[in-house]
Amino acid sequence: MRRSDAVSNDVTIEPNERVDDLLTRRLHIIQSREVFSFSMDAVLLARFAGVPPRGRVLDLCTGNGVIPLILTTRTKAPIDGVEIQPKLADMARRSVRMNRLENRIQIFEGDLRLFHLQCGYGIYDAVTVNPPYIPAGTGEPNENPYVATARHELNGTLDEIIQACARLVRTGGRVSLVHKPSRFVEIVDTLRKWKLEPKRIRFVHPYVDAEANMVLIEAIRDAKPDVKLLPPLIVYNEERHYHEEILRIYYGNNDRDARGDQDEGAAKL
Amino acid sequence: MRRSDAVSNDVTIEPNERVDDLLTRRLHIIQSREVFSFSMDAVLLARFAGVPPRGRVLDLCTGNGVIPLILTTRTKAPIDGVEIQPKLADMARRSVRMNRLENRIQIFEGDLRLFHLQCGYGIYDAVTVNPPYIPAGTGEPNENPYVATARHELNGTLDEIIQACARLVRTGGRVSLVHKPSRFVEIVDTLRKWKLEPKRIRFVHPYVDAEANMVLIEAIRDAKPDVKLLPPLIVYNEERHYHEEILRIYYGNNDRDARGDQDEGAAKL
Repeated sequence: MRRSDAVSNDVTIEPNERVDDLLTRRLHIIQSREVFSFSMDAVLLARFAGVPPRGRVLDLCTGNGVIPLILTTRTKAPIDGVEIQPKLADMARRSVRMNRLENRIQIFEGDLRLFHLQCGYGIYDAVTVNPPYIPAGTGEPNENPYVATARHELNGTLDEIIQACARLVRTGGRVSLVHKPSRFVEIVDTLRKWKLEPKRIRFVHPYVDAEANMVLIEAIRDAKPDVKLLPPLIVYNEERHYHEEILRIYYGNNDRDARGDQDEGAAKL
Repeated sequence: MRRSDAVSNDVTIEPNERVDDLLTRRLHIIQSREVFSFSMDAVLLARFAGVPPRGRVLDLCTGNGVIPLILTTRTKAPIDGVEIQPKLADMARRSVRMNRLENRIQIFEGDLRLFHLQCGYGIYDAVTVNPPYIPAGTGEPNENPYVATARHELNGTLDEIIQACARLVRTGGRVSLVHKPSRFVEIVDTLRKWKLEPKRIRFVHPYVDAEANMVLIEAIRDAKPDVKLLPPLIVYNEERHYHEEILRIYYGNNDRDARGDQDEGAAKL
């Protein structure tokens, strides 16, 4: 939470916005309490997702572009982001410019359900998505329309979002997503319905003795069934501090990544 | 691994068999290296499964009856076991007699795929099953026919076994099973195909930083989707000794259970 004038010279920062550090200060991102701030979910997905060293990568529901920004530390592939809310797409574009990553990341403003009409079918090697978690019509949507849209399936159901992933990824390409465990069974069913076979699953537990509150899933288009259940990712240790692995994801082992090396092993989940 | 003459007076123990303690010596079980010995998988399932305090409980693929024996410490319900191999059904029956549990456990020798013809549809409140893990025709079956039958789906596919569970359990009743995580997606699909909705899932990891090598699943017949991902069950601690929770399952907190109290909380997973 620091405004970094050094990097924001050529980019307008709105009054309600701030510039935060991302990954040990190598990257910067425009956030806003009123409009959008990324969550741990997005960071974990950006570390977990299978991405090729080269090829084409797509992030749906990209928000302020946090996932494409982090992914530039893990791949040299060009990365596209799709965001339906104009204000967020604009924030994402300005963050891309601020980091001088215009030649690596392109942000599209639009509806992910129609994106194949623009770019074609099966053109991506990897797709990531951190979708809204709550079905439309369930619970009381937040009064803030930005927050409501980020949390509720107002612009596409889980089925439509996964269908879009399946349309846009090539055979053998990877689709990675983060979601709530309570919908896990529905997610697995829907992935398989659209020919996306779950291959790597990692549950995130706040404590080692607590139920999972997040799940990371990587599926491969048209693959054979055979799934790995990775070690649990534990967020807090017994002293209620971040667990070593989480610290490493946020702060450690990133220097090499940030130089754009393709060594995915270092901080990959 | 001790032969307990005190309890085996009225029961024949074959030359290749031994009598083992079960649950802090309150129970005894006939085992055989050549024919059948229970595994940790069965013990964990017997602790994990949702069973009603009363009602009717069924264990399919019961082997030497280890799951019905342990379940007598968690419910007062009559428990039926079904085993297709005559030699194992006989071992299970003798273990039941040895523990003087003939009025609590009944062992049926037969094919689980036909058991509904004998007992009817939907008559059980809870069904447990520790099925063979390996599809028939995959890998080299063990030369020992008892071991081969316990490990390979020689007497029913996963689909047939889950279908049998769904036929035998009542609406709202519970089906609990243990299996390998590599087939997890297939299991979830098959459960839902037969109207068994997964409600509680617990992955078992040998170490906290290792992939899961076992999964416990409880499904409810005709229930609404909404699943809990329980805390990971870690088998070994960093010193490569059994983790506290595993010790508790095997040795601790069982005295009260063994008297037949219905306090499931004590050692339930």
